[in-house]
Amino acid sequence: MKHLYLIGMGPGGPEYLTIQAIETLKRVDVFFMLEKEGRGKEELLERRHAILRRYLGDSGYRVVTATSPERRTLPGGYQETVRAWHATKRQLFAQLIDTELQDGQNGALLLWGDPTLYDQTLSLIAELAAASAGTLEFEVIPGITSVQMLTAKHKIPLNRVGESILITTGRHVEHCDPSAIDNAIVMLDYNASFRRFTGQDMDIYWGGYLGCPDEVLVSGPVDEVLDALLETKARVREEKGWLLDIYLLRRRRASDD
Amino acid sequence: MKHLYLIGMGPGGPEYLTIQAIETLKRVDVFFMLEKEGRGKEELLERRHAILRRYLGDSGYRVVTATSPERRTLPGGYQETVRAWHATKRQLFAQLIDTELQDGQNGALLLWGDPTLYDQTLSLIAELAAASAGTLEFEVIPGITSVQMLTAKHKIPLNRVGESILITTGRHVEHCDPSAIDNAIVMLDYNASFRRFTGQDMDIYWGGYLGCPDEVLVSGPVDEVLDALLETKARVREEKGWLLDIYLLRRRRASDD
Ligand SMILES: C[S@@+](CC[C@H](N)C(=O)[O-])C[C@H]1O[C@@H](n2cnc3c(N)ncnc32)[C@H](O)[C@@H]1O
Ligand SMILES: C[S@@+](CC[C@H](N)C(=O)[O-])C[C@H]1O[C@@H](n2cnc3c(N)ncnc32)[C@H](O)[C@@H]1O
Repeated sequence: MKHLYLIGMGPGGPEYLTIQAIETLKRVDVFFMLEKEGRGKEELLERRHAILRRYLGDSGYRVVTATSPERRTLPGGYQETVRAWHATKRQLFAQLIDTELQDGQNGALLLWGDPTLYDQTLSLIAELAAASAGTLEFEVIPGITSVQMLTAKHKIPLNRVGESILITTGRHVEHCDPSAIDNAIVMLDYNASFRRFTGQDMDIYWGGYLGCPDEVLVSGPVDEVLDALLETKARVREEKGWLLDIYLLRRRRASDD
Repeated sequence: MKHLYLIGMGPGGPEYLTIQAIETLKRVDVFFMLEKEGRGKEELLERRHAILRRYLGDSGYRVVTATSPERRTLPGGYQETVRAWHATKRQLFAQLIDTELQDGQNGALLLWGDPTLYDQTLSLIAELAAASAGTLEFEVIPGITSVQMLTAKHKIPLNRVGESILITTGRHVEHCDPSAIDNAIVMLDYNASFRRFTGQDMDIYWGGYLGCPDEVLVSGPVDEVLDALLETKARVREEKGWLLDIYLLRRRRASDD
């Protein structure tokens, strides 16, 4: 039997780990780290190493680093592209577990934020475990999400009293009817889709690199802060070469004035 | 200047606190605890004391306990009821800060889960801070939510690839059109509103007392597990006298079979 922990590492800084996560780290024999292509990869990998150094000291644990397969756009469209990408990634995990984790050992993946929020690793590992005839088990250790960092830093409730909130993607808000959105957290937005929400009496609460040393916050009515926000995004992305950002869109109520 | 920390304590067990939360505890002069009426209050209060004992030792910190005002239904309906309840609660906080927290001191509230998820404390404190002419400041320290405990324990993604998810209340799903829901986390449900989702090809992932010693999990197609779930809920509520529960409703896709 092999055991795999999917550990939520929070939004970057070692202070966001829970005691449960730290106690789990101490039981791990092998840490698997997937290196992504592109700028920012050193920094994201370094955050994981900093966590291990802080809580496990300088040695005594094994790290296996592999290159995460890139998503290649296929002629069959989005669905086919994602399916093929996942298959490649699942195969990589299968191979790592097969060759680098011994029977009776504990492996772990340090996952950004919480393992259950927009991260396909959990589904892929669940599929491998289901197909393993009981030889692979896994556990999920929750971590602080970028959603929580956003609301904490802006000091706003995720939901106003009695209201619902949608957690969604840039892909979705790029195409939806803007008037259908009252409260939404938008993640994975590569096209600044908040531009579609002008003239809608909406506020935006935006955060970049939350919980990291370069954290930036912008908030206000979409109509008023749009230009400054686009400028901020362009500037920080230019400076660092990459950007992690998230925002909340919220329709104003009569009583907000 | 007085400083107030709203600290997310996670779903009960001390192991769910983050290092940031623990470091914050150590800077606190006065902990405010609001005692709710009703069964379960001793246990919820004891969880907070257990956290303080574990991370601060047996003494050296001051705790001020007050009785949380109950919500009394007013003739004006839900809005008026909530408004009056919040006004009373805001007044209580104002008075506690005024009489129990000295200038230059740090006060704290240990809030269940994350302070920004369905907890009105943050909004009330923000109003007091805004009206304080700079004499009251506050900070939000994120904590693991019951939403994350639910997905971690069931080992499921909060959202499937590319899909959105709604976080909502029992009040909402009790009245909405069931076919309008594809993926929803339901909190604060006192009427087992998942009963409305039979014949909808939906799965439910339910959790009671998550992260607590009495944790219970139930999952499966709504049509198949409905009776067992109602029975489980009735039994555990009978045994303990109170129940904290949350669930995810998810429409099955063709590929799930
Ligand atoms: C693949 S998802 C992973 C989310 C992660 N599991 C979590 O719990 O936050 C990546 C998206 O999360 C958001 N994100 C993650 N970390 C962030 C941070 N530190 N600051 C701002 N946004 C962040 C961005 O929207 C980004 O596109
Ligand atoms: C007033 S809200 C507070 C939520 C809290 N701030 C959080 O982050 O989880 C209370 C609701 O949260 C859910 N909840 C909180 N703790 C829970 C637990 N340990 N197990 C199951 N549900 C829980 C239930 O739906 C409950 O009605």
